[in-house]
Amino acid sequence: MIHINEHFLKLQAGYLFPEIGRRRRAFQTANPDAKVISMGIGDVTQPLAPAVVEAMKAAADEMGRAETFHGYDDGGVGYEFLRKPIAENDYAARGVEIALDEIFVSDGAKCDTGNIQEIFALDNVIAVTDPVYPVYVDTNVMAGRTGRADEGGRYKGIVYMPCTEENGFVAKPPAENVDLIYLCFPNNPTGAVATKQQLAEWVAYARENKAIILFDAAYEAFISGPDIPHSIYEVEGAKDVAIEFRSFSKTAGFTGVRCAFTVVPKALKAYTKAGDAIDVNPIWNRRHCTKFNGVSYVTQAGAAAIYSDQGKQQTQRIIDIYMANAKVIRETLSNLGYTVYGAVNAPYIWLKVPNGMGSWEFFDLLLNKAHVVGTPGAGFGAGGEGFFRLTAFGTPDNVKEALKRFGKIS
Amino acid sequence: MIHINEHFLKLQAGYLFPEIGRRRRAFQTANPDAKVISMGIGDVTQPLAPAVVEAMKAAADEMGRAETFHGYDDGGVGYEFLRKPIAENDYAARGVEIALDEIFVSDGAKCDTGNIQEIFALDNVIAVTDPVYPVYVDTNVMAGRTGRADEGGRYKGIVYMPCTEENGFVAKPPAENVDLIYLCFPNNPTGAVATKQQLAEWVAYARENKAIILFDAAYEAFISGPDIPHSIYEVEGAKDVAIEFRSFSKTAGFTGVRCAFTVVPKALKAYTKAGDAIDVNPIWNRRHCTKFNGVSYVTQAGAAAIYSDQGKQQTQRIIDIYMANAKVIRETLSNLGYTVYGAVNAPYIWLKVPNGMGSWEFFDLLLNKAHVVGTPGAGFGAGGEGFFRLTAFGTPDNVKEALKRFGKIS
Repeated sequence: MIHINEHFLKLQAGYLFPEIGRRRRAFQTANPDAKVISMGIGDVTQPLAPAVVEAMKAAADEMGRAETFHGYDDGGVGYEFLRKPIAENDYAARGVEIALDEIFVSDGAKCDTGNIQEIFALDNVIAVTDPVYPVYVDTNVMAGRTGRADEGGRYKGIVYMPCTEENGFVAKPPAENVDLIYLCFPNNPTGAVATKQQLAEWVAYARENKAIILFDAAYEAFISGPDIPHSIYEVEGAKDVAIEFRSFSKTAGFTGVRCAFTVVPKALKAYTKAGDAIDVNPIWNRRHCTKFNGVSYVTQAGAAAIYSDQGKQQTQRIIDIYMANAKVIRETLSNLGYTVYGAVNAPYIWLKVPNGMGSWEFFDLLLNKAHVVGTPGAGFGAGGEGFFRLTAFGTPDNVKEALKRFGKIS
Repeated sequence: MIHINEHFLKLQAGYLFPEIGRRRRAFQTANPDAKVISMGIGDVTQPLAPAVVEAMKAAADEMGRAETFHGYDDGGVGYEFLRKPIAENDYAARGVEIALDEIFVSDGAKCDTGNIQEIFALDNVIAVTDPVYPVYVDTNVMAGRTGRADEGGRYKGIVYMPCTEENGFVAKPPAENVDLIYLCFPNNPTGAVATKQQLAEWVAYARENKAIILFDAAYEAFISGPDIPHSIYEVEGAKDVAIEFRSFSKTAGFTGVRCAFTVVPKALKAYTKAGDAIDVNPIWNRRHCTKFNGVSYVTQAGAAAIYSDQGKQQTQRIIDIYMANAKVIRETLSNLGYTVYGAVNAPYIWLKVPNGMGSWEFFDLLLNKAHVVGTPGAGFGAGGEGFFRLTAFGTPDNVKEALKRFGKIS
């Protein structure tokens, strides 16, 4: 008799964003004339940079001619024409040396941050910040690394590291031993960033405890502070203990195009139960080329165009639009009396829900009264309760209109 | 201390195709003037159909304009504009009713056939044919459903079902109870197909034993026999016990574009240890939308164009080219005295290695003497030893040249 993986039955409700979509659609059906503005799911609105579009069209044309047709991307780790500019622009330019065979191109940081846990044993102790991007937690629940959730939604067996107003939403390394640590800076959902000193403490912890840090840097392009590290590898010694995830989704509006990459340094080790050190890079490579078959040639051509001079200028203009949104959201809501965090080095605004309201309660209020969709902090874990995430990815006009409506309900 | 998933250490050598690539490159480096012809990895050579290229370019243009830009594919299960023609052309047209929410669009059947095992418990008994597409086995090894491999390469805990000349390379249901059965028809690597009667026996077995069949139909477009089923759902009752995988990789030359889909019927159940029946469709949906973020809009637009009248004609012309290759390979090698199977309803030729040679030995001979790359049968499991897979995906000129060289060494 076929048995289901019962760990899936431990998962709470739906995955966050489909649930938000469901409530939004229900409202829209009941109120067909309401013009709902989304500041919820972190989806972009600006079109692709012209350099990217042109590169994709040229690549599609190549695929239509026998002489320039591309089949499988050999090994599926990404074309050199993309991995090379990644190594040069994202790493060498910041003083970090990353070899091409340390870079694995994929179809999304969600997939990579979800899949990476597979290559580690089931009895490792996982540590996540609280609040946290739900994918880190849910994929470990599915794999069976946790017990059931308690009433607050915290799964047994996971070490939660509270990110609060008091610690500036940057957790310290825990007192206990943990093995696999998920960090995300600039942070989703709080918009917080870690200083180099703070990351160095994490790297020191991981080196001392033979832990591995899974560093999600999907939002690094939004960093404005000159001293904030864009990569964890800017910290000395991090290559021995950290895997880094990057994405073109927000950097270049690729949410609907699907391209990202993961760096697994060749220096990184994990251990057998017998204590033997095992290179992680070839294990991830094996996982990648067994369960994945590479990213579309057309998509990779588009991603490579982000690194051209034109592509860089054009994508920077898009980022500037979003960060101008972030600034106006932050300032307007502050003026309205809200306590707001983030929005300086990140496209996320972390809003303190007023009057001790619950975050789903505030979601419903905002949807019903202002016709604005945001993301309840509780959707990111128990530590997010009392907060609300807004994204800066709307069009400037929609952002302005949404803020006007905030003014009316405040 | 971070522990590696030690199941990965049970995997044998490299994944098959990278190993073939390695040997080919080594030969090419030593013999830079040799013109090596690949009949090994199942990669296509004909360019994309013009209708597909045009659709992708139009979609790229849409992505470059704010009014027509597409971000996340909501839920990541695929746009209706693609799932609808799938349901109509691939199923309704053959008398099978599949609802849109039973179709999950993905970036490859390799990914889906590799990932599907995650939603089932680790103690299910897996059955695979022997020889078999290595992904089915390797992903179960990684997950920990097997012991170590024996000297013949068979993993402890997996039930292997021999596919031999005697049974026409179509295995019968096993005498013992198994829970999760991987079937692939038209078969990779043998090119065999199952009749409706043979599939009906499998469906009956699965219904009786509460097993689930994972039916890989990636090559259905190559079926020429009018009575051969294209979908397992053509068998009455299959929707209760089978998941079906399809791909555009070979159908429409999408190996470098990446699009496929999986059908998980709403009638399909798996069971908890306590014996409760659980719907599999929402579990796969949860897995899909937690660990995956949809296929590129541009790619989906290209895939939808395959179903246009022009797209159908153009892709059929490509399939005809490959099947003409298959025919000439089959006939020429037969005339040269080889025993050959497949190549009638499938783009694969399953060649009996002459003179009791080993299949890797024949690989090296063919590479060194004829400068032709094929795939050793042993790469598909112990049951493939003594056989050799050739693909029909080359250009007609290369196929002709390769066959000439076969003539010289035979």
